[in-house]
Amino acid sequence: MKNILVGQSGGPTAVINASLCGVIREARRQEQIGCVYGMINGVEGFLEGRYVNLSDTLDEEALNLLEGTPAAYLGSCRYKLPEEMEMPVYRRLFERLHKLNIGYFLYIGGNDSMDTVDKLSRYARKTDSSIRFIGVPKTIDNDLVETDHTPGYGSAAKYVAATVRDIVLDASVYEQQSVTIVELMGRNAGWLTAASALARKEIGDNPVLIYLPEVAFDMEKFIQDVREALKKRANIVVCVSEGIADAEGSFICEYGQRAGTDNFGHKMLAGCGKVLENAVRSKIGVKARSVELNVCQRCAALLQSAADVEEAENAGAVGVQAALAGETGRMVAFKRTGTDTYGLEYPLVDVGYVCNQEKKFPLSWLNEEKNDVTRAYIRYALPLIQGEREHCMQDGLPRYLFRKLP
Amino acid sequence: MKNILVGQSGGPTAVINASLCGVIREARRQEQIGCVYGMINGVEGFLEGRYVNLSDTLDEEALNLLEGTPAAYLGSCRYKLPEEMEMPVYRRLFERLHKLNIGYFLYIGGNDSMDTVDKLSRYARKTDSSIRFIGVPKTIDNDLVETDHTPGYGSAAKYVAATVRDIVLDASVYEQQSVTIVELMGRNAGWLTAASALARKEIGDNPVLIYLPEVAFDMEKFIQDVREALKKRANIVVCVSEGIADAEGSFICEYGQRAGTDNFGHKMLAGCGKVLENAVRSKIGVKARSVELNVCQRCAALLQSAADVEEAENAGAVGVQAALAGETGRMVAFKRTGTDTYGLEYPLVDVGYVCNQEKKFPLSWLNEEKNDVTRAYIRYALPLIQGEREHCMQDGLPRYLFRKLP
Repeated sequence: MKNILVGQSGGPTAVINASLCGVIREARRQEQIGCVYGMINGVEGFLEGRYVNLSDTLDEEALNLLEGTPAAYLGSCRYKLPEEMEMPVYRRLFERLHKLNIGYFLYIGGNDSMDTVDKLSRYARKTDSSIRFIGVPKTIDNDLVETDHTPGYGSAAKYVAATVRDIVLDASVYEQQSVTIVELMGRNAGWLTAASALARKEIGDNPVLIYLPEVAFDMEKFIQDVREALKKRANIVVCVSEGIADAEGSFICEYGQRAGTDNFGHKMLAGCGKVLENAVRSKIGVKARSVELNVCQRCAALLQSAADVEEAENAGAVGVQAALAGETGRMVAFKRTGTDTYGLEYPLVDVGYVCNQEKKFPLSWLNEEKNDVTRAYIRYALPLIQGEREHCMQDGLPRYLFRKLP
Repeated sequence: MKNILVGQSGGPTAVINASLCGVIREARRQEQIGCVYGMINGVEGFLEGRYVNLSDTLDEEALNLLEGTPAAYLGSCRYKLPEEMEMPVYRRLFERLHKLNIGYFLYIGGNDSMDTVDKLSRYARKTDSSIRFIGVPKTIDNDLVETDHTPGYGSAAKYVAATVRDIVLDASVYEQQSVTIVELMGRNAGWLTAASALARKEIGDNPVLIYLPEVAFDMEKFIQDVREALKKRANIVVCVSEGIADAEGSFICEYGQRAGTDNFGHKMLAGCGKVLENAVRSKIGVKARSVELNVCQRCAALLQSAADVEEAENAGAVGVQAALAGETGRMVAFKRTGTDTYGLEYPLVDVGYVCNQEKKFPLSWLNEEKNDVTRAYIRYALPLIQGEREHCMQDGLPRYLFRKLP
């Protein structure tokens, strides 16, 4: 009987722990699996001999708490394995795996983490190891190829939509004209920023303008768009991706950094929201404000989408089943089924094809002016933000499962 | 039979609409009151003849939605009445009040709004008008004197505590040392920043350092505090008020503005969080990040404290009762009762004494090092964040009551 080893890697999401629960619960259901071990801080920590026996420590009550706990319970890492399989790190890692009698290696992460799964599965084949390596997807950025969407995106999109709806109300209380810029995560892909369109209750509502990094950003056109929007309503809200860049490829956030240094002579890194806020104030002369939603987009557990939690958990469970069925070097993907009602299948795809690629927001889902998304995106995204999870509250605050730090 | 006029003024909160519900519901219960009118955009809009008849438009279902809707349903203003009562604006305003047969004027707002209530009640006395003017407190800043706390603070504190708890988890996933600075609202008073202490699950937890504007901020001491904290744990979270200033009275946020201009030659206004992030990176050389919670602190309706909603609604109801009882120039205050169990009474205080004053965070609730709050604050604050309100959700997002814009 072989043991299973699970790890979390890359930036956290609100449901990466739900996938961990899926792995643990499914492993317990499977009689061929012995212990469930968790790497502490991904492969990086495991290489240093840091892991935990999850079979002993987490009962069903703890798993329920874990499902609603944001960030990576096991800790995470940003560790890239070398290209050369002759490097000693591979041998060291496999020695540790054999010592723990690991038969199944499950890695929950984004495209960098899928690179790890790819390399380890190739090394295993090369060395005739029978250990199976499976990737479980995770990223709020929704930028993995070969999958309809990624676990973590639904909750982040729900957080963005709900929070932008709040901000729109807040920004509309005064008569005086105002422009509020909301800066959202997404360096290369605009999926999260697109989710701000879900905040509208009807067509024409705020946010009235949405700019994604897939399209070259033109400052003059932006100022003109804002002027036009201000003719129709006093208070406008604009949503932008952090990674917007102009036609020359210069990031808008860098516009603000040319002259800006602090007391110590260091560059002040302001976001593109600040740059646009300043541009609106100086070129149009109206009250302007910028809000950066920042890490809350990936850790706001109270706004988990129940659909996302369920799918993230299923992805973990399917990963375990795949490993048991003999698969290796594969990632669990999401395939949408049905046209009228939303459904999901969990096919497996080659991890080597997924890693180091990015799925951009489709240009066909942008309006002609390239400053908004179309109904096609809304239809795509709505099923992903459905349902709320009932959280365990204690003393007015969410109760989470904390791993005791060493 | 006289009518009632209600308005909202100043910055919004998550429960300012709950106070509006309290006014409307209590006015409907009182047979001596005719119509309930609402000023659109406070006295400023009312002076332009903009108001709405709330008796016709809001049924009980709408009021339930309104209770959970953030920002000011009636719109708000920042309007200061002149000191000289001979100015024509007073006569104009009272003409409008008489025309609508107003007997009771309820104004929901912070200390600037209480100044309006004070002046109008004095003008009424001077001109033998029988209209009664009552203030209903509201501010996330918790800085009104003569009241134990203010409606709006409990929900904002709950949002800060829950969000900082999420951020702490998010900031702790990597092994590598890191410092996360969370910048919270509060220009002169540190009440909201203090609420970040509620995020801890036990003593010694993150956030390990908390700096309020009531104490002069010393950059060298701060760097030393961070260095010490990093000896004990790899990832530390620091919470600071936006308004922290040094012993000379210079705002820390201004440290970053001396040299910083954007492409257009305009000053880039960065917050103190950015300045501290840069200082940590350059002086200590560890990974640093800053997060500004911004307007979400006052508009995150899904994190309303049920206790706060109830008290805000009661404040509105008590305001109506006070006006009917012949009171004028008074504000509804909160007085804590009981020592073992939390209870609240709603005394009236002179609005002239409340307006234009600020209640600072008590220095006796700070630790010796002035970089944390004590248990006394925790005991004070815990009852204010208790309970959750069940929100009406639709298509995965909160359903709110929107006022149709003209």
